[in-house]
Amino acid sequence: MAEEDVKLLGVVGSPFVCRVQIALKLKGVEYKFVTQDLQNKSEELLKYNPIHKKVPVLVHNERPINESLVIVEYIDEAWKGKSILPADPYQRALARFWAKFIDDKVFGAAWKSVFTVNEEEREKNVKETHEGLQFLEDELKDKFFGGEEYGLVDIAAVNIAFWVPLVQEVAGLQLFTNEKFPKLYKWSQEFLSQPTIEECLPPRDPIFAFFKGRYESLLASAK
Amino acid sequence: MAEEDVKLLGVVGSPFVCRVQIALKLKGVEYKFVTQDLQNKSEELLKYNPIHKKVPVLVHNERPINESLVIVEYIDEAWKGKSILPADPYQRALARFWAKFIDDKVFGAAWKSVFTVNEEEREKNVKETHEGLQFLEDELKDKFFGGEEYGLVDIAAVNIAFWVPLVQEVAGLQLFTNEKFPKLYKWSQEFLSQPTIEECLPPRDPIFAFFKGRYESLLASAK
Repeated sequence: MAEEDVKLLGVVGSPFVCRVQIALKLKGVEYKFVTQDLQNKSEELLKYNPIHKKVPVLVHNERPINESLVIVEYIDEAWKGKSILPADPYQRALARFWAKFIDDKVFGAAWKSVFTVNEEEREKNVKETHEGLQFLEDELKDKFFGGEEYGLVDIAAVNIAFWVPLVQEVAGLQLFTNEKFPKLYKWSQEFLSQPTIEECLPPRDPIFAFFKGRYESLLASAK
Repeated sequence: MAEEDVKLLGVVGSPFVCRVQIALKLKGVEYKFVTQDLQNKSEELLKYNPIHKKVPVLVHNERPINESLVIVEYIDEAWKGKSILPADPYQRALARFWAKFIDDKVFGAAWKSVFTVNEEEREKNVKETHEGLQFLEDELKDKFFGGEEYGLVDIAAVNIAFWVPLVQEVAGLQLFTNEKFPKLYKWSQEFLSQPTIEECLPPRDPIFAFFKGRYESLLASAK
């Protein structure tokens, strides 16, 4: 394709943006990363995502696409190269199911386990996180969710592999550990150490410091 | 395809089950509707949807698929005939975006506007419903969201076309009216009167009575 113009509106440290970065890397797509200030939203962001006003937004030849999983499927369909979704309709449906499951039932609960000051709410969310992770632990049959190569579910689950261990440390919680979820833990180590994935991950220390600060100001505001 | 075995585990009156019925009808797939008792869940339901334990579940040659939008995309890919999603990757991404938008931002808010006894929560959800419907009103450019033929977004939005007017009447609310959303209202009338859609809709009166009963028992329990 000639004269491709690909921009990714994002912030470093967002698991949802990271999904899109991984998908673009997997396809070998060149793009421009346009860092956004979410405290002071740019005209570009408001123009390209007037509904949610959130990152990531992929802009391909001036046409915007929103929602990280929608973007990842778009990338799979718009560019040739390694496939992100399997070819078989049933396997595709399962991949979409699990990607949605991660967003609806696991990551949100893990996040709320950390970023709350309400003990009851925390307990409820920790329980939900553990239940969700157990379903993923049971589902994992091969090296990756995608089989011998990583695919949609692995990419979706980068939030579990990288972000959940980081934010659980911020709050001193045990959400996703090797002891509780050995298969899933092994998967996360394997996945994060893939060279293409490593290149897309944010630097751990500043992200940790950022979330630690956010957690502490939440605690302070509740006093 | 020879010896196809297609079952739909569902209940009459569920907007999510209705989406799957429409998709199967559009493709001309013969199937067996297996009515579920959600107060007393069947072994079949627990076996085929152990995670969410909800309907709809499509079982195709003994292989289950869950989540209504995942099922609709599966049906589009597994059977030939009229297409539910467009062919172009960008148009497919838009369709997926809007289908998700309906679930995340519109239908849930409309439902919570009705089935709550908390006035503040109701107001918040009515506002959210109106905002969501306005985005849909602005997005609608043709006869259907899918263009001249209905597609994924129209099928997803059956909950807005049929169920929202029904439950708003239950609670005496004005969520989705011709006055507020004339284009969307016209779309809903056009869509619901398509012969293939009409055949998939539940009978209005018993469904109205069912939700009325639920609403009244909610009110009674709050006293």
